Amino acid sequence: MNVAIKAYKRKLDINNGRVDLSHGAGGRAMGQLIEGIFHKAFDNEWLRAGNDQSAFTVAAGRMVMTTDGYVVSPLFFPGGNIGTLAVHGTINDIAMAGAVPLYLSASFIIEEGFPLADLERIAESMGAASREAGVPIITGDTKVVERGKADGVFISTAGVGMVPAGLDLRSDAARPGDAVIVSGSIGDHGVTVMSKRENLEFDTDIVSDSAALHGLVATMVEASGQHIRLMRDPTRGGIAATLNEIAHQSKLGFHIDEEAIPLKPEVAAACEFLGLDPLNVANEGKLVVVVAPEGVEAVLAAMRAHPLGEEAALIGHAVADDHCFVQMATSFGGGRIVDWLSGEQLPRIC
Amino acid sequence: MNVAIKAYKRKLDINNGRVDLSHGAGGRAMGQLIEGIFHKAFDNEWLRAGNDQSAFTVAAGRMVMTTDGYVVSPLFFPGGNIGTLAVHGTINDIAMAGAVPLYLSASFIIEEGFPLADLERIAESMGAASREAGVPIITGDTKVVERGKADGVFISTAGVGMVPAGLDLRSDAARPGDAVIVSGSIGDHGVTVMSKRENLEFDTDIVSDSAALHGLVATMVEASGQHIRLMRDPTRGGIAATLNEIAHQSKLGFHIDEEAIPLKPEVAAACEFLGLDPLNVANEGKLVVVVAPEGVEAVLAAMRAHPLGEEAALIGHAVADDHCFVQMATSFGGGRIVDWLSGEQLPRIC
Repeated sequence: MNVAIKAYKRKLDINNGRVDLSHGAGGRAMGQLIEGIFHKAFDNEWLRAGNDQSAFTVAAGRMVMTTDGYVVSPLFFPGGNIGTLAVHGTINDIAMAGAVPLYLSASFIIEEGFPLADLERIAESMGAASREAGVPIITGDTKVVERGKADGVFISTAGVGMVPAGLDLRSDAARPGDAVIVSGSIGDHGVTVMSKRENLEFDTDIVSDSAALHGLVATMVEASGQHIRLMRDPTRGGIAATLNEIAHQSKLGFHIDEEAIPLKPEVAAACEFLGLDPLNVANEGKLVVVVAPEGVEAVLAAMRAHPLGEEAALIGHAVADDHCFVQMATSFGGGRIVDWLSGEQLPRIC
Repeated sequence: MNVAIKAYKRKLDINNGRVDLSHGAGGRAMGQLIEGIFHKAFDNEWLRAGNDQSAFTVAAGRMVMTTDGYVVSPLFFPGGNIGTLAVHGTINDIAMAGAVPLYLSASFIIEEGFPLADLERIAESMGAASREAGVPIITGDTKVVERGKADGVFISTAGVGMVPAGLDLRSDAARPGDAVIVSGSIGDHGVTVMSKRENLEFDTDIVSDSAALHGLVATMVEASGQHIRLMRDPTRGGIAATLNEIAHQSKLGFHIDEEAIPLKPEVAAACEFLGLDPLNVANEGKLVVVVAPEGVEAVLAAMRAHPLGEEAALIGHAVADDHCFVQMATSFGGGRIVDWLSGEQLPRIC
């Protein structure tokens, strides 16, 4: 995002204008778009420096890096939009390593004809989300493709963070007997997006849970970091996919109690209507943490004391199981295997 | 890129298969695609760990971060493809800060129906380019959108690197009297892609100059780092845009000598045929460096001793100019202002 041009004659008409191919061409129009929308919305010293890369000082230690692409459809939904998702999701992937997120990058691929007003709205949401989280977007890129070669806008964010000394969470670290805790109600994000996409109206308002979880994670690590085995944010594929992944990576099984899993009645109702299993539905502001038995009390207490973990619940335990099955005791007193989906249930949910 | 699943029944048919929506759904098919194509092609310990983020140890110091989206059309062209471009381009943005690139991330947005064989070919090129550069792709993400909602595949890479102690290149650091050096012939990449797109056949083979420049940069910094003011890789917008950007950021002008600018005769001929000014055409393996007078000899010698800088040439000087004009003495003995393009000349060149 370099280029700072003052004297370009064609003004950026944000109210009525649309992105055209010149906005991705490396010339004056691109400079104007970047200045007028992205630099304004993200507003920080790094972007103002106008380089193709941004510099910052790090202390020696263990760093994490992550990236995610965002293609959610529709772009705007109750509780957020593609921009807030792109900020929260990448912060969360860093936080799941127990790390403190430091900086984000953002790459925009925009379809010709996309309204400048929508782009500004998305950029402003990203700026607000990144400021609220204290994680600035310090570098970026903008490309424009012809009409019909993309779908409005796609965003890829990357992020870096520092892991607190002594903490080393690993995907194969779960042990039989460990507790599984979820930070709050499941399925809110996926059901919100699906409802919006299908143009469904429900009696109650369901909103996406999209949120940055690093603050919650920091309190958990402070409370009992040495007992946290690993964390995951159950996005695509829901907690079913997350638990199955952990089971395979740690080579064990899980016993889960359906009644213990927080689920909003309106989300449950919408899932029934849409034919979805809430266990497979994406979350964007929830985490699953596997904790050694001696840390459960402290971690749960820390979570419940944080606004994003008030409804944290112990939902089950890891067990020795060569088949790596995730088994669930159902509300009706029976049991079933919780599998991940082999195919597509919810396209473009994030 | 988490998920490691062994027992999924539907095999990945790379020769005849196509990407479908299930490959982006967070379930088994996605795990299989990631394992069977990306992990195999990028092959490193970080991806094998199967986390949503990857960790590495850093020393204290100044770090840089960058990102770029790649939407080049066509995806394959003489001298490279979208994958090599995504690796080289992001490495180069890090190198332009004088930094040593360390790690890359890659986010793929794939159109439903994209041939798995093409995806594998792209991933393998990326793996080879990243190994050759010594900069591993340590984390990634895959999304799939419906047919007609993208154009084959888009890739966004991000990268981090460390700046050598004592080096601090800034876009406003150029001073009147500084020399402008370009590392080799201009326009090769843009003309290659345009020729391929227009299905033009030329007598001689023009190939993209796509290359990772961090090795060249390292020799330049070693030779005379204290005299290097700033570097830029002239991609979109060509050296015309790059020089105008530097002029505006450093608040001065440039006097450039057309005859001194390395330009292959076949590229010049193709530009004439296509109606392009080579100064506006994108490069993907060239750099422009602004050097204080006392460092010119050492920097030029170091560049010419490196395979990617053999044709390095001093093309002009910075001058005091409140208008920030880039002026060029032409081969015919006249002069002209070199402006950046206000609109679109070469869509989707990178």
